[in-house]
Amino acid sequence: MITLDYLKQSCSHRIVWLLEALGLDYELKIYDRLEGTGFAPEELKAQHPLGKAPVLQDGDLVLAEGNAIIQHLLDRYDTENRFTPAHKTDAYSNYVYWLAISASMFSANLLALVSKKGDLGDFAQYTDAQVGLYFNHVEQSLEGKTWIVGEQLTGADFSLSFPLQWGLNYVNKADYPNIVRYLEQIETHPAYLKANEKTAGGLDLSRF
Amino acid sequence: MITLDYLKQSCSHRIVWLLEALGLDYELKIYDRLEGTGFAPEELKAQHPLGKAPVLQDGDLVLAEGNAIIQHLLDRYDTENRFTPAHKTDAYSNYVYWLAISASMFSANLLALVSKKGDLGDFAQYTDAQVGLYFNHVEQSLEGKTWIVGEQLTGADFSLSFPLQWGLNYVNKADYPNIVRYLEQIETHPAYLKANEKTAGGLDLSRF
Repeated sequence: MITLDYLKQSCSHRIVWLLEALGLDYELKIYDRLEGTGFAPEELKAQHPLGKAPVLQDGDLVLAEGNAIIQHLLDRYDTENRFTPAHKTDAYSNYVYWLAISASMFSANLLALVSKKGDLGDFAQYTDAQVGLYFNHVEQSLEGKTWIVGEQLTGADFSLSFPLQWGLNYVNKADYPNIVRYLEQIETHPAYLKANEKTAGGLDLSRF
Repeated sequence: MITLDYLKQSCSHRIVWLLEALGLDYELKIYDRLEGTGFAPEELKAQHPLGKAPVLQDGDLVLAEGNAIIQHLLDRYDTENRFTPAHKTDAYSNYVYWLAISASMFSANLLALVSKKGDLGDFAQYTDAQVGLYFNHVEQSLEGKTWIVGEQLTGADFSLSFPLQWGLNYVNKADYPNIVRYLEQIETHPAYLKANEKTAGGLDLSRF
């Protein structure tokens, strides 16, 4: 039995997309953000020692962290390698590369959010450059490719969707036509549309 | 042919540890940080579009990001699964979980560093709590275990070593006896000692 703790307007959304793409049965527990602060509610925080969404329970396993949940679900349930490149290929190495980049983009976005809220002094120049650095890299890497690794939709696309959707708040969208095309492709993927239905709405990240 | 671009006093060190543990042949290019700022030199930045260390070249593949490099090296060269739990086991899922936690701890440390350099206003409370949150989770998870997944030294330990070594700057060491024991175990591992030799010195993260 799989259960997913889902926080609205968060990186939880890409996990529902993957669960739908894999055609799995799961129970979804949807949590609203607190009015005002936008923080996660206490009931959600109680689900995991880190208090962060999403949380996936699969039998005795309790996992947080998008990349961990994505790799766990593919390891267990992607038995036909629909979303996982074959081992010992460059595609596999690029798949784990883009998973890692996704985590670093998340961190870059968080720095940008923090930078907006305070005064970072000498560090602001470094911080403010990070989101654009990653966006430029993704933009160039998408040139001539359907998905981030190549022709195959992989776990890396599920992972990367969220930091790109969020990061658009900090860049000029017009500078990134490949990323805009890529996100349109993601947001109209049949399993993504199902995820929108299941969660009663898509993502609205405008407040971050 | 494997080449590693190694920046002194950085997360590059754990990759040398893994290369030594796997017994691989590789060429090491060591870069000093710039005096004053401590930033990476331009020659290193030129090795990868993100300009970040470490960078691993393996044939035609060029990879940045510690977790990507670790997963690539294990996928290709850990043929006897010495450092990789078997697929479809809870140990495998916990291995990818701790890889992901390691990336998030890196991000938490970066927030702590930024917070030290500037004034984050209302956000400081959130930011300052993050490192301790992860340290508490690792501390509890190490209780009664040799390595972070269990009895087997895995890629997750290689990954986690650096954010813990760095994060000690932001916590009270005495609160974390399991982590202190775990880092001693890491820093006296035969392949880690070889990494120190190869790089002409261990890590000194005191300036961060």
